[in-house]
Amino acid sequence: MFFAFDNTAPAHPAVMDAVMRANSGSAASYGDDPLTAQVTAQISEIFERECAVYFVTTGSAANGIALTSICPPYGAVLCYESSHINLDENTLPALYTGGAKLCPLPGESGLLTPAIVARYLDQLPSHPPHGAVPHALSITNVSECGTVYHPAALAELCSKAHSRGLKVHMDGARFANALVASGCSPAEATWKSGVDVLSFGGTKNGCLAAEAVVFFNPDLARVTEWHRKRTGHLWSKMRYLAAQFEGYLDGGLWLELAGHANAMARRLSDG
Amino acid sequence: MFFAFDNTAPAHPAVMDAVMRANSGSAASYGDDPLTAQVTAQISEIFERECAVYFVTTGSAANGIALTSICPPYGAVLCYESSHINLDENTLPALYTGGAKLCPLPGESGLLTPAIVARYLDQLPSHPPHGAVPHALSITNVSECGTVYHPAALAELCSKAHSRGLKVHMDGARFANALVASGCSPAEATWKSGVDVLSFGGTKNGCLAAEAVVFFNPDLARVTEWHRKRTGHLWSKMRYLAAQFEGYLDGGLWLELAGHANAMARRLSDG
Amino acid sequence: MFFAFDNTAPAHPAVMDAVMRANSGSAASYGDDPLTAQVTAQISEIFERECAVYFVTTGSAANGIALTSICPPYGAVLCYESSHINLDENTLPALYTGGAKLCPLPGESGLLTPAIVARYLDQLPSHPPHGAVPHALSITNVSECGTVYHPAALAELCSKAHSRGLKVHMDGARFANALVASGCSPAEATWKSGVDVLSFGGTKNGCLAAEAVVFFNPDLARVTEWHRKRTGHLWSKMRYLAAQFEGYLDGGLWLELAGHANAMARRLSDG
Amino acid sequence: MFFAFDNTAPAHPAVMDAVMRANSGSAASYGDDPLTAQVTAQISEIFERECAVYFVTTGSAANGIALTSICPPYGAVLCYESSHINLDENTLPALYTGGAKLCPLPGESGLLTPAIVARYLDQLPSHPPHGAVPHALSITNVSECGTVYHPAALAELCSKAHSRGLKVHMDGARFANALVASGCSPAEATWKSGVDVLSFGGTKNGCLAAEAVVFFNPDLARVTEWHRKRTGHLWSKMRYLAAQFEGYLDGGLWLELAGHANAMARRLSDG
Repeated sequence: MFFAFDNTAPAHPAVMDAVMRANSGSAASYGDDPLTAQVTAQISEIFERECAVYFVTTGSAANGIALTSICPPYGAVLCYESSHINLDENTLPALYTGGAKLCPLPGESGLLTPAIVARYLDQLPSHPPHGAVPHALSITNVSECGTVYHPAALAELCSKAHSRGLKVHMDGARFANALVASGCSPAEATWKSGVDVLSFGGTKNGCLAAEAVVFFNPDLARVTEWHRKRTGHLWSKMRYLAAQFEGYLDGGLWLELAGHANAMARRLSDG
Repeated sequence: MFFAFDNTAPAHPAVMDAVMRANSGSAASYGDDPLTAQVTAQISEIFERECAVYFVTTGSAANGIALTSICPPYGAVLCYESSHINLDENTLPALYTGGAKLCPLPGESGLLTPAIVARYLDQLPSHPPHGAVPHALSITNVSECGTVYHPAALAELCSKAHSRGLKVHMDGARFANALVASGCSPAEATWKSGVDVLSFGGTKNGCLAAEAVVFFNPDLARVTEWHRKRTGHLWSKMRYLAAQFEGYLDGGLWLELAGHANAMARRLSDG
Repeated sequence: MFFAFDNTAPAHPAVMDAVMRANSGSAASYGDDPLTAQVTAQISEIFERECAVYFVTTGSAANGIALTSICPPYGAVLCYESSHINLDENTLPALYTGGAKLCPLPGESGLLTPAIVARYLDQLPSHPPHGAVPHALSITNVSECGTVYHPAALAELCSKAHSRGLKVHMDGARFANALVASGCSPAEATWKSGVDVLSFGGTKNGCLAAEAVVFFNPDLARVTEWHRKRTGHLWSKMRYLAAQFEGYLDGGLWLELAGHANAMARRLSDG
Repeated sequence: MFFAFDNTAPAHPAVMDAVMRANSGSAASYGDDPLTAQVTAQISEIFERECAVYFVTTGSAANGIALTSICPPYGAVLCYESSHINLDENTLPALYTGGAKLCPLPGESGLLTPAIVARYLDQLPSHPPHGAVPHALSITNVSECGTVYHPAALAELCSKAHSRGLKVHMDGARFANALVASGCSPAEATWKSGVDVLSFGGTKNGCLAAEAVVFFNPDLARVTEWHRKRTGHLWSKMRYLAAQFEGYLDGGLWLELAGHANAMARRLSDG
């Protein structure tokens, strides 16, 4: 699936409406407002699990903040060689994490597999502290090639990663499209298959600029608020970010929009 | 002047309207859209000079990106000891600049003076490369104490800074309020008095989340786009940031709102 | 006490002899050699406690590596305003820690006191995650003013620091001189008084270039080896660093040299 | 060629003698001493060109400091996938440069070729500021596979790199061995073939711990002294580093030792 216009399309009217609704009266700042709490709870409900949620405005920021929680400055992150974090985010991952290195791996139609991960790790010299030891695996779903991780394959991949001591980050800039394509639940597509932290995208699917970093184990997010602040992504008027997600999630709009986009993408590639 | 509610108030309806207007049809991404070009030109007009303009969403990000252009990783930035960059932005200035150090100085009612700057520089050991040599002076207008730099004092301060090899950054989170209070033009309050780069705030005065980093000498901004990208602040749908400034600036709304706020602040302080 | 020539004097013949002795036959690299183990044990013995010891070649590196263990990238380090880490190490502390901020405090003849520390902390806005929260206190002994922390004052200071959640680093570039001047034991001058990590200097007191980062609680050093490596300070032929300390410590040479230097410094200041 | 014992062998007696000779009387600190000036001049003479020379103690530090001069924090460095900077220096290159990314390339027996470089650059998306644009090529000579760049191949590679806007760094941890194997002059093996900056190794070939970062265009080294300081590698008693190189270079010892080592390596590989 290819989604040509996702950075150029307008936001969905329902998202705009939610932003407009949020614009009345005063509200506590920096995320202490009721709307942010409400949407965070809504996300936990959608994922069938208590989540720690951090709203930001760009996918690059979401990915970077997610990585700060699972890779130290002296570690490495395995990723697909044409992944967004490797080719489209300049040197943000290194900046945010304090220096962590990306290890670009070949993929199969954009997807990483247990074998690809194992092969890379097996040939890596094991000589701490000389090499940067991989602490994390970052995958993208929908992938940069338009392909999708199905739950069984995802579970196998995450299991391999965990067995080698890696936490798993999913770049879900097009997470809704992946869900629709794979037909599985948000929980199945993430923590039930072993994903530790998700960049849950809204911008490419109907929002103005809204992404949520979703931690399925809140322990991982112990210091995330500090990282969001020091990278300049803690909004004073957080409700305008939360509101976008409110409009995006309410009534399943996000999945509906993804369904349309997937159909369009299929038509494009078929035609 | 004290502005109690600036992080909690809703955005002005005219700003919301501009955002709504921007939400029609597709537009080129990452700032290549006509609206971003138009608002950038409008800012240049307001400042009576060709400016390089970079929109971001938080004041911390604006300040940090401004500093990357005037202080190297091995340099230092002089600032007021209770300045926002020193007390309210965690370690963002060091992160963005790659390590530059803040040198907190005492102020006079929140304002720095040529004498304060000179005194600090004169007592600093001169032994490169051992010390971090100051490359920049960062001041806040309206200051953190609610006071304002008047053009003559500002010009004298900037002149002193320049004579000691420092570039000058102005944190203008409340720039509109400073203009109204001092009664001078945007140009007088900045480059005509020697300011090199301005964080031009919108968020605290009617926007949702919009700040503009304004360079009065575009040469200083040669690599700024890289820094905006690598810190995660390059919006794909930039028009929604530009639109906020469009609504904010059109018809002088920004100054009108600042006038109201200043009057309110006076009333508060008068009791 | 002022020590005019400490960066220009030659190394002591006994130190050179130890280096020469180390230069025979092959030895395991990166610190896995018997001499490094032996000198590490010797340091533990001197401090009457199992220590984690990391040899490096400059005081700046020693201080920076020590700080990585007690302050996160989003935290702050309290220090004397004219301390070496603040004025003489460029921006190394920020680089090594990933961004941590230094908070320069006034001293009393170069010494920090519980009252100075408390006064600073008490006036600091408490609004995480906006400010960089102090995680560490760094003091210098012999101080930059030539004064010395006596055990009772040191214990009181460290106790205050610990009660406020700060770990304590001692920059002991002239630690031997401090010991001789205060007449207390290495243990009393450090962990028995509450110091968590010491930069134990050799370079200014008879070595060529040798400093030891000494952790009194090895738990703090869990990831220190990674930091030593990634900052470029892990020597392949570590024995030549360990050998300098061997020569320096054997027979109490370090204290003897410090005694001479202190006497000389007194003579200088007596005029 | 494989050099099994280079991190475990003792230093050459002539190197030790030079260090002993340096240990007499006082000398200006931080590299302002006559010996450092003399050895720097000697290196310029050996390379038949005015060089800017920075002594440090580890190869990792030398490589990192070299890279700071040719790659900005938002840029990338092409290197061989099994290169020392990629596999053996943890995340030092990112730390020193402020975030620059390594792009690991396949090699031909450990050597990069114009075709490999061109192929990588040609497939790289060109979309600044999204990707990290390559600013530098780093090669190793003798390579990590024990192979050697011959001047004609090297010139062709550097020429390709320069034509694509890349500066060239050579990791010469075993530079002497490369010279002996290729039979060319130091100048031919470096700047005459297009190398911009060399890590000139001593540690693996007879020194205790000494490397020299050699810039063939001193303009590139404008801010190098700041980087050496802030990474903790500016020795106060620099003469002990310079002395190692004095002993290493005098009478061509370095080439003699490399000749022996190469012969030994050949014997090993011949079995």
